[in-house]
Amino acid sequence: MDSKTFRNEGYNLIDWIADYLDHAEDFPVLSRSQPGTIHDALPAAAPAHAEPFDQVMADFEKLILPGVTHWNHPRFFAYFPANNSAPSILGELLSAGLGVNAMLWQTSPAATELEQRMMEWLDDLIDLPAGFHGVIQDTASTATLCALLCAREKSTGYEFNAKGSASLEVGRPLRIYCSSEAHSSVIKGARIAGFGDENIVQVAVDKDRAMAPDALAQAIETDLAAGRLPCCIVATVGTTSTTAIDPLQKIGPLARKFDLWLHVDAALAGSAAILPEKRWILDGVEHADSLVFNPHKWLFVNFDCSAFFVRDPGHLERVMAIDPAYLQTDRDSQVTNYRDWGIQLGRRFRALKVWFVLRSYGADRLRAMLAEHIAMAVEFRDWIEGDADWELLAPVPLNTVCFRFHPTGFAGADEELNRLNKDLMDRVNAAGRTYLTHTVLDGCFALRLAVGQTGTQRRHVAEAWEELREKAGEAS
Amino acid sequence: MDSKTFRNEGYNLIDWIADYLDHAEDFPVLSRSQPGTIHDALPAAAPAHAEPFDQVMADFEKLILPGVTHWNHPRFFAYFPANNSAPSILGELLSAGLGVNAMLWQTSPAATELEQRMMEWLDDLIDLPAGFHGVIQDTASTATLCALLCAREKSTGYEFNAKGSASLEVGRPLRIYCSSEAHSSVIKGARIAGFGDENIVQVAVDKDRAMAPDALAQAIETDLAAGRLPCCIVATVGTTSTTAIDPLQKIGPLARKFDLWLHVDAALAGSAAILPEKRWILDGVEHADSLVFNPHKWLFVNFDCSAFFVRDPGHLERVMAIDPAYLQTDRDSQVTNYRDWGIQLGRRFRALKVWFVLRSYGADRLRAMLAEHIAMAVEFRDWIEGDADWELLAPVPLNTVCFRFHPTGFAGADEELNRLNKDLMDRVNAAGRTYLTHTVLDGCFALRLAVGQTGTQRRHVAEAWEELREKAGEAS
Repeated sequence: MDSKTFRNEGYNLIDWIADYLDHAEDFPVLSRSQPGTIHDALPAAAPAHAEPFDQVMADFEKLILPGVTHWNHPRFFAYFPANNSAPSILGELLSAGLGVNAMLWQTSPAATELEQRMMEWLDDLIDLPAGFHGVIQDTASTATLCALLCAREKSTGYEFNAKGSASLEVGRPLRIYCSSEAHSSVIKGARIAGFGDENIVQVAVDKDRAMAPDALAQAIETDLAAGRLPCCIVATVGTTSTTAIDPLQKIGPLARKFDLWLHVDAALAGSAAILPEKRWILDGVEHADSLVFNPHKWLFVNFDCSAFFVRDPGHLERVMAIDPAYLQTDRDSQVTNYRDWGIQLGRRFRALKVWFVLRSYGADRLRAMLAEHIAMAVEFRDWIEGDADWELLAPVPLNTVCFRFHPTGFAGADEELNRLNKDLMDRVNAAGRTYLTHTVLDGCFALRLAVGQTGTQRRHVAEAWEELREKAGEAS
Repeated sequence: MDSKTFRNEGYNLIDWIADYLDHAEDFPVLSRSQPGTIHDALPAAAPAHAEPFDQVMADFEKLILPGVTHWNHPRFFAYFPANNSAPSILGELLSAGLGVNAMLWQTSPAATELEQRMMEWLDDLIDLPAGFHGVIQDTASTATLCALLCAREKSTGYEFNAKGSASLEVGRPLRIYCSSEAHSSVIKGARIAGFGDENIVQVAVDKDRAMAPDALAQAIETDLAAGRLPCCIVATVGTTSTTAIDPLQKIGPLARKFDLWLHVDAALAGSAAILPEKRWILDGVEHADSLVFNPHKWLFVNFDCSAFFVRDPGHLERVMAIDPAYLQTDRDSQVTNYRDWGIQLGRRFRALKVWFVLRSYGADRLRAMLAEHIAMAVEFRDWIEGDADWELLAPVPLNTVCFRFHPTGFAGADEELNRLNKDLMDRVNAAGRTYLTHTVLDGCFALRLAVGQTGTQRRHVAEAWEELREKAGEAS
């Protein structure tokens, strides 16, 4: 593709994206594509010869677009927000154009130093206590894995890296504590790092689904008495199902008392700490050794961008560093080489999009938008609570509402209520105007509405509520 | 940023990138930025209020650009190529615009199914034997970690995931075999997965720096005799230092004989297998259980895009899968959910850029460009071999030449020669016209020239050779 074609096709693509974002609402939010249809519509092999780009874009619109679930749609209330934004898209574009690999300081000093500064800006925005140092990672899955590896090596004096399982005394396995509501990535990370499922202690939660500190203390004591080695606590600030907030102020002192690594998984909710009225969710974070939150979930940065903070970067580097001759530079003792701060060697220049977003919005507008999202969720909660045919299933500290249809006088079995709500969700999603997903709370199938898309306004939430009631009425 | 501003700034940015790519050669290829200057030039905190985008771009040009090392520069011969391209940049832009998370089939059927098709196209292009199934991952580091986890769980019947170190009998550690030239990511992956450094057997290499199969067989036999558990062989097709090719035809049967997982790390070199005359590098790959190669290194796809193939996706899924209620969909038994094919839950829509690149170039043009890169490296090798003051340090099967300045009649110690070449490299890199890096081969400091940037033409390699001779002349 020559320079002129790139310009023309680039302008066209910018226009396409602008139109798309302006009209995302017009698409069915959940794709109606049937399994295999897109795969089967594409040729079995790459073309032998170059094809013109307008033909590729025509195929994109015809074949691919109908198979897209629209994460930019203002009535996308599923999972977590994509929370994309124009400046972020431009940042990603510029990063792709520069093609920089930010593995070493030398391979682009600006990529490393802008990343350091952006992590300081984010640190400041969520008001972390002094002494944290940050790095951008792809996902919270990876960041939590890094935290677990740091914990593993702290507990074994770097012997697990050196000796693997031989570093442990027989019968003295390393133990991880998280709540029963912790994200699946904690369990996955623990498996990858070789802890083993049976050494993940899922601590009981209180009535608000936050980790119960007494239960945590007891689990640690029990393990110690049995000769096991407590290693790491993963506290969740904003659980996936209900945004429950584990109490860091009570968990932190336990981590200090027993000398355990404390990792805070604030993947979604961390962004809310930029609001002074929500900063309490991180109260006690001064006890943490590491924390992750995802600007790609709720700070208008497009996926992927996960902010990982540690107290002791020297320890992280010692756990992660590999130093082959071909990667050594004269600057290594003077600079930060972020390759030693995570799993992957290669790293994209993600700091650009963070910079573009934070400057294009400014702290005040970011705060205003998050406060609006929370206000919308709270209003939706009030609608649920004000209607006798609906039931709120969890508190709403932030942007996520868990609820179900529970018509007055319903006398059937719990299973029947679950089926009713599953069926309701499927019919709402199939209609294409609203997309929401579910979780399971104490055996109850819970509908889950997460507010946070960039384009979501009060009317979109009202429309979702209207649609839910309408579809529920058809069913009952 | 409103829609109109996005359009205007988007056009400007497209123009900026087009101009940049047209004139990448005019920049100093290695940034001359001094440690800390960029960080210190940026404000200590995010702005309180929104700033206009043209001001951000002005700061980009003034503060950030001088700190960029230009991976798009046609005389960037360091590390591995960025090998960026216009259609790939547009693919990344569209992916950012759509903001899709490709974690589940349902969260965008098109993202999953286009990815499946693109992996079939790549499989076909490098002529893999039947039976491989592919997924796009971010880096070869991550893909190799996945392979090591698959090997670990195969050897332990999924017990390591379940029990961690308790799944192993005392004194029966799992062993990994790779050559002494294998990439640092193998060691890092083995540490992460809990094998431990002392269980990574670095097998001796032959005179061409390829793994010696006899030494491999002996290492396995020794471990078996000592009661250790051989688990995985990582063969490298195209080592980082010299692109040495481990002989899969001889290693493969050993993997089968001892029932070990065979992972092939073809991160850079795998792309060369699209050339019929280079397909021999993968001879014997029919014995492999998994393979990774990076279209982001040498197939004109911008970073990140790593193609990971496995024989048995059911095993990969069983090793990786976590299935919390909030991620379950009705389609799960009918579709591929790529979240269970790797480390991270969240996944970008990377297949778009692969599709854009493969269609915009076509197989014939991709082959022609790779053949040109190899021809340039071979010609550079010939120049080295034809000059008595220079010494070739390794064979050149592909795009990478390892060499050193070794003036006729030089009678100093090896260390002096190393210093001479290190100094030469530093002076060449400081001049800003050419960037190359080094490796160490049997104690020799080796200059390393890797050809493969999209814009590199014969004259750029000739200019590098001229500059090397000129700078060497100044020194001697």
